[in-house]
Amino acid sequence: METKIVLSELEMPQAWYNIAADLPEPPPPVLHPETGQPLGPADLAPLFPMALIMQLVSPERYIPIPEPVFDIYRLWRPTPLYRAHRLEKVLDTPAKIYYKYEGTSPAGSHKPNTAIAQAYYCQQEGVKRITTETGAGQWGSALSLACNYFGLECKVYMVKVSYHQKPYRRSLMEIWGAQVVASPSEDTNAGRAALKANPNALGSLGLAISEAVEDCVQREDTKYLLGSVLDFVLLHQTIIGQEAMTQMSKTADFPDVVIGCVGGGSNFAGLIFPFLGEKLRGGRSARFVAVEPEACPSMTRGIYAFDYGDTAGMAPIAKMHTLGHTFEPPGIHAGGLRYHGMAPLVSHLYNLGLIEATAVHQTKVFESALTFARSEGIVPAPESAHAIAAAIDEANKAKESGEARTILFNLSGHGHFDLGAYDAYLRGQLEDYAYPEDKVKEALTHLPKV
Amino acid sequence: METKIVLSELEMPQAWYNIAADLPEPPPPVLHPETGQPLGPADLAPLFPMALIMQLVSPERYIPIPEPVFDIYRLWRPTPLYRAHRLEKVLDTPAKIYYKYEGTSPAGSHKPNTAIAQAYYCQQEGVKRITTETGAGQWGSALSLACNYFGLECKVYMVKVSYHQKPYRRSLMEIWGAQVVASPSEDTNAGRAALKANPNALGSLGLAISEAVEDCVQREDTKYLLGSVLDFVLLHQTIIGQEAMTQMSKTADFPDVVIGCVGGGSNFAGLIFPFLGEKLRGGRSARFVAVEPEACPSMTRGIYAFDYGDTAGMAPIAKMHTLGHTFEPPGIHAGGLRYHGMAPLVSHLYNLGLIEATAVHQTKVFESALTFARSEGIVPAPESAHAIAAAIDEANKAKESGEARTILFNLSGHGHFDLGAYDAYLRGQLEDYAYPEDKVKEALTHLPKV
Repeated sequence: METKIVLSELEMPQAWYNIAADLPEPPPPVLHPETGQPLGPADLAPLFPMALIMQLVSPERYIPIPEPVFDIYRLWRPTPLYRAHRLEKVLDTPAKIYYKYEGTSPAGSHKPNTAIAQAYYCQQEGVKRITTETGAGQWGSALSLACNYFGLECKVYMVKVSYHQKPYRRSLMEIWGAQVVASPSEDTNAGRAALKANPNALGSLGLAISEAVEDCVQREDTKYLLGSVLDFVLLHQTIIGQEAMTQMSKTADFPDVVIGCVGGGSNFAGLIFPFLGEKLRGGRSARFVAVEPEACPSMTRGIYAFDYGDTAGMAPIAKMHTLGHTFEPPGIHAGGLRYHGMAPLVSHLYNLGLIEATAVHQTKVFESALTFARSEGIVPAPESAHAIAAAIDEANKAKESGEARTILFNLSGHGHFDLGAYDAYLRGQLEDYAYPEDKVKEALTHLPKV
Repeated sequence: METKIVLSELEMPQAWYNIAADLPEPPPPVLHPETGQPLGPADLAPLFPMALIMQLVSPERYIPIPEPVFDIYRLWRPTPLYRAHRLEKVLDTPAKIYYKYEGTSPAGSHKPNTAIAQAYYCQQEGVKRITTETGAGQWGSALSLACNYFGLECKVYMVKVSYHQKPYRRSLMEIWGAQVVASPSEDTNAGRAALKANPNALGSLGLAISEAVEDCVQREDTKYLLGSVLDFVLLHQTIIGQEAMTQMSKTADFPDVVIGCVGGGSNFAGLIFPFLGEKLRGGRSARFVAVEPEACPSMTRGIYAFDYGDTAGMAPIAKMHTLGHTFEPPGIHAGGLRYHGMAPLVSHLYNLGLIEATAVHQTKVFESALTFARSEGIVPAPESAHAIAAAIDEANKAKESGEARTILFNLSGHGHFDLGAYDAYLRGQLEDYAYPEDKVKEALTHLPKV
C-alpha cells in the first residue's frame, strides 16, 4: 500500500490551468479605485509587468509555463501526494485521506509557485526592484527566494504582529537578500498615518499592501507583487491541482471532497481549480470546501460586495466576500489568513454555489495540527492546519455515517517557523476569538460607492 | 539537464550495508568502562535492545530493514539527489557538484534513519521508555518522532547551550510528545555535579550522554538510545549512501570525492560507507573527506586513543580520535558537531588512511551556507554547511587547476531551526574560536588507563 505518490519531472504539468475558460459566467469586472470604472491593462501597468496583466484577461484554458520558471520549479516539484494511512488509523475512519504537500519548497509553502513566475516576468521586462507585503511571512520569504533567483532587489512590508511573532521568517528573507520592515512603518504615508492613529497597531495584510503599493508607485524601476487574491496568482497555483489529479489517477480513488484553507484564497484555488474545471466540463464531480478562521471569516460571515483590496483604498476595487477593507483582524497565529477579503474568483465561485465554506477556531486548528503531527510526522503550518481540521471533520462524519469517502486536502506548508505558536498552544496560552461582529459591522459602512 | 534525481519507493534499498564485512582489518575492541575488558553483549544489555547489540557483532554484509521501519522510511524516503547547477554557475567551476538531501524528513535531518530503527527494536523487546541526549536538537527531535510512531515515552537531555539557542527545537520535540530538560540538569548525579562545579556550564554532548545513561540504568523499563558514534547507528545511515549510489548510476557521473560533516560521524559514514565498500572490494574509487569544526577538531588535531564515549566515564571505552572526554567545546552554532570524539569505525578508517579530514571555522561555514542558500535555495543546517564549505573548496581547486571533477556531499539537514545563528552571522556577531590547544592538552591527561 503506497504511502506517497511521486511524479517524475517528466510528468510535471507544462502549463497552468486557466479556469476562466470553463466558467459558466464571467466574474464581475474589477474597478479603478478612483474612477470606479472597469480597469484596463493600462491602469495596472504601473503595478504589474505586462505579461501578468495579459494573463488576467487571457481566454486560453492552458497558459504555458516559461522554461526558466519550470527549471526552478524542478528544484522541489513535483511535490508528493500522500495517503494519510496513519491519520486514518488514529481517527478510526472508513474514509481515505490524501494530502498534497507543498512544504517541500525552500520557502516551505506553495507561495513560490507564483513568486517564481512573477519575478521572472518582471526580470524579462527590465524591472530592477520589487515591493510586497507579507502576513505570516510565507509570501515574503517566497518572493525573497524568487527575487534572489532572478537578481532583483526586494523590499518586504511585514505585518507587525507576525514580524514579532516570527523573527525567524524575517531572517529567512534576509538570507535570500531581501530588506524587511515591520508594517505599519515610517517609510510610507499609509504607514505613518496608521502609526499616528495607533502607535501600537498590530498591522494587517490590507495595510501592508497599501504601504507596498505606495512605495512601488514612487519609483520607475519598481513593481509591486502580490502573493494571493489576484487571478494570475490563482492561475500559477494550479500546478498543485494538476499534479494532484495526475497523482490521484495513479490510485484507485477520486476525491469526493477537496479541501483547502483560505486567506486570500490561492492555495485553495490552486488545488481545486483543475478538479472543478473537470466538473464544469461535465467530468467527474467533487465537493469543494474552503476553510477560514472564525476570527476572520470573510466567506461564512462577510458580504459579497465591491471593496478595495487594501486598507488605504489605493488598490483596485473588486467584488468579493469581505469583512470591510478597514477591518483589522485579531492577532490569531495564522497570519496568512488575516485578510479582510477573499479572492474575487473564489468569491465568484462561492456566489455561484460551486464551492462551500466553513470556519474554525484556532484551538481546534492546533488540536488538529497536533493530531496530524503525531500521526503523519510533518508539523503543519497553522494556516494549513485549518484544512486538516476540516478534513478530520469530514473523516469523522464518514465514521458516524459508516460511509466510505475519499478526502483530499492541501497541506500548503510546514510549521517550522510557527513553533512559537505551537509552544503557546502546548502551554494552554492560546485563546479563541469570538467573531468580532461589531467591528465588522462598522468596517462594512466604509465600502466604496460604486 | 536534470536537477534532481528521484527514486521510486520500489528502488529503495531493502537492507542496510554493514561495512564490517569489507574492512581490511577489524577495529580495536570496545572496552568496559570499569573493568577495561572487551565488552560482550551482556554488558550492553542494560542500555540497548538485543537486536541492536547483535548488529554490532554481525559479520553479514547486508542486514534487512524490518518492514515497520521501511514503512516509516517511506514517509520521506528515498530522499532526492541534486545536481547543484546553480551553485556550480556561481562558483564558475568546471566541477560537477551533487548533493544528497536528507532534510526532507519530518525532523529535518538524517537522524530519523536510525531513530526509527532503534525505537522499533525497543518496542519489539517490550521497552516502554527511552532516554537520550541531544546537541543541536536534531537527534532529540528525530527520536521524539520515532518514539511517537512506536508509542514509547521519551526523555531528552538537551545540551544547555542549544536548549537556549534553539527553543523551537524543544517545541518540536514536545509536539511529538517528548519530555525535554536542559543538561546539566538537576535530575541526575552527573548533572548535579556539573552544576555544582559550574552553575553556568554550557553543557556538552558528552555530559548529556552521562545524564541520559544514568537515568536509563535506574529503571528496568527504560533503554538508552544514541544518535551517532556507535556502529549500529552508522549502519542504519547507510541507506543514504546506497540510495546515492543508485542515483549516481542514473547520471553519467561517479564521484571523485565524497564529503560529509562530522560530529559523531554518522551522516558522513552513512553517505560514504557504500562507496568505500565498493572501493574496498576492488571496485570504483573515490576520495572521502570528513569535515569538522576548527573549534572541535577531533580528527585533525585529536589523538587516536582509548577514551570514554561520555564525559562522566560511564559509557564504554573505545579507540577513537579524541580531544579528551572532559573537553568542553566552545559554543559554536553547530551544536551537533560539539563532541569530543569520533565514531570508532570512522576513526579506524582514518587511522588506516582510507579517509581524509579537514577543519573549518564557523564564519567560513556560514559564508558557504549563504552562498548555497542564494544559489540552490535550501537553507542548510550549520552542521551540514561544513560539508558545503569543503565542497566549495574542492570546486575552487578544480577551477584553479582547470580540471573537471565530480563532487558529492551530504546535505544532512535544513537550517529552519538555526535561523538565530544565521541572524547573528548576518549582523556580524559571529566569532571564530581559536583551536583551544591548552584545554585539549589538559583534557588528554584524563584518558582512561587501559
